[in-house]
Amino acid sequence: MDEDAPRPPVYDLLGIEITEAEDGRARGRLPMRPELSAVPGRELAHGGVVAALADSVGYWAVSSLRGFASTPTVDLRMDYLAPAEDDMVATGEVVRNGASVGTVTVDVAAGGERVATARGTFKTGGRSGDWYGDG
Amino acid sequence: MDEDAPRPPVYDLLGIEITEAEDGRARGRLPMRPELSAVPGRELAHGGVVAALADSVGYWAVSSLRGFASTPTVDLRMDYLAPAEDDMVATGEVVRNGASVGTVTVDVAAGGERVATARGTFKTGGRSGDWYGDG
Amino acid sequence: MDEDAPRPPVYDLLGIEITEAEDGRARGRLPMRPELSAVPGRELAHGGVVAALADSVGYWAVSSLRGFASTPTVDLRMDYLAPAEDDMVATGEVVRNGASVGTVTVDVAAGGERVATARGTFKTGGRSGDWYGDG
Amino acid sequence: MDEDAPRPPVYDLLGIEITEAEDGRARGRLPMRPELSAVPGRELAHGGVVAALADSVGYWAVSSLRGFASTPTVDLRMDYLAPAEDDMVATGEVVRNGASVGTVTVDVAAGGERVATARGTFKTGGRSGDWYGDG
Repeated sequence: MDEDAPRPPVYDLLGIEITEAEDGRARGRLPMRPELSAVPGRELAHGGVVAALADSVGYWAVSSLRGFASTPTVDLRMDYLAPAEDDMVATGEVVRNGASVGTVTVDVAAGGERVATARGTFKTGGRSGDWYGDG
Repeated sequence: MDEDAPRPPVYDLLGIEITEAEDGRARGRLPMRPELSAVPGRELAHGGVVAALADSVGYWAVSSLRGFASTPTVDLRMDYLAPAEDDMVATGEVVRNGASVGTVTVDVAAGGERVATARGTFKTGGRSGDWYGDG
Repeated sequence: MDEDAPRPPVYDLLGIEITEAEDGRARGRLPMRPELSAVPGRELAHGGVVAALADSVGYWAVSSLRGFASTPTVDLRMDYLAPAEDDMVATGEVVRNGASVGTVTVDVAAGGERVATARGTFKTGGRSGDWYGDG
Repeated sequence: MDEDAPRPPVYDLLGIEITEAEDGRARGRLPMRPELSAVPGRELAHGGVVAALADSVGYWAVSSLRGFASTPTVDLRMDYLAPAEDDMVATGEVVRNGASVGTVTVDVAAGGERVATARGTFKTGGRSGDWYGDG
């Protein structure tokens, strides 16, 4: 991945690490902790936290095919399959690499089990300066 | 809304407030701040942050029709329409209130402009004790 | 709408009529008949039939803002709210009109009741000759 | 699969054949012909036709885990990856088999290439007689 790419501040707030981004694939992780939970006294990741990880990994998978240019999220669809009660790992793979948009599939696992699967569409063909960000 | 419902810890981390939840409608807000940004040096909300707000408001809209029982998110679909660079307000409305599942539409505005729109499916018919949470 | 636009052959097979397409809005109809049904002996429209109507109306809403150029469907998300057991009418409205992609909301009613609601992303920024069709 | 299950009339109109449905997996096919096209004079399947095939295969994958009971579509999300210009084959696999809802992934190929990928949520926990159909 591009070590010089600017790191989104929200990664620090949540604890997201992107560990790989190359050739249309990306991988990231998010250690579970009580602050990310949907339920007091339990470590059960809120759906928005899982979405943040999936969006991020999807973004880098698409961006890796565009020289790490900005590829803003157009839409994101999350399917929650099981509660996420452990450290999360997400892997993304581009399934459409178009001149205007890219589409990516992201799986999220926690404790070795798939807890969510996502699809997203990202903009690949923007004019320079167009809606920078949403990484 | 149900003032006694347990508050998800992630609401504190992100800054989400649910201000209304009644009769299949809900409303919430999330003040913008640098820690929520996707871009260093700018206040541009990361897509996952917007998703967390939408998921939360959708959840309470559905749950308000079920005596504030747990109604876990089954799936969530985000459409990002414009960058969110200001305090966010989200409003949700149930469009299907079924015995097994409910469906809800959520709009998110920032600075008076719609920045995202979402649809989600939530479980209404779970057995007691079934996958508690995902508020 | 553009009366000279080529009519997709599948419109004849299913019975789809586009009755309006202008300024980011479109409207279409599909009379119910037994051949469209999911259930023998009943007139209950198959989900794919409802999707075909929603996709078509969404396409024309977006295309109407692009001089009726080809704007292929990137993704389409259907929410089924109630069984469609009567003639269907669909109305679409663009919610994002971008240089690369447009996003549209489509509602489908049957017998005066909303039976489905859809969101779709369509390509607006393709190179000429790029994946023509999917009207 | 259940040979005695009622065949949806729309399968005949479009030409859909379900060739396998067992243990949470299903397979179907749809031969291409001019009547299914989005473009006059070309054989390029309309998005709604691809959606009809994906919805059908997803339905049977879920239903196969429920003794072939009715499992109506709650929502369906299509991602179009490439034009479908040849006979189509779709394969579906359940990724969540819950008491209230099931979730399924469906891939559609034409001429040996993946042309679309879909995700759908289907109702598994309905009361008997609840919204029969949408097969």
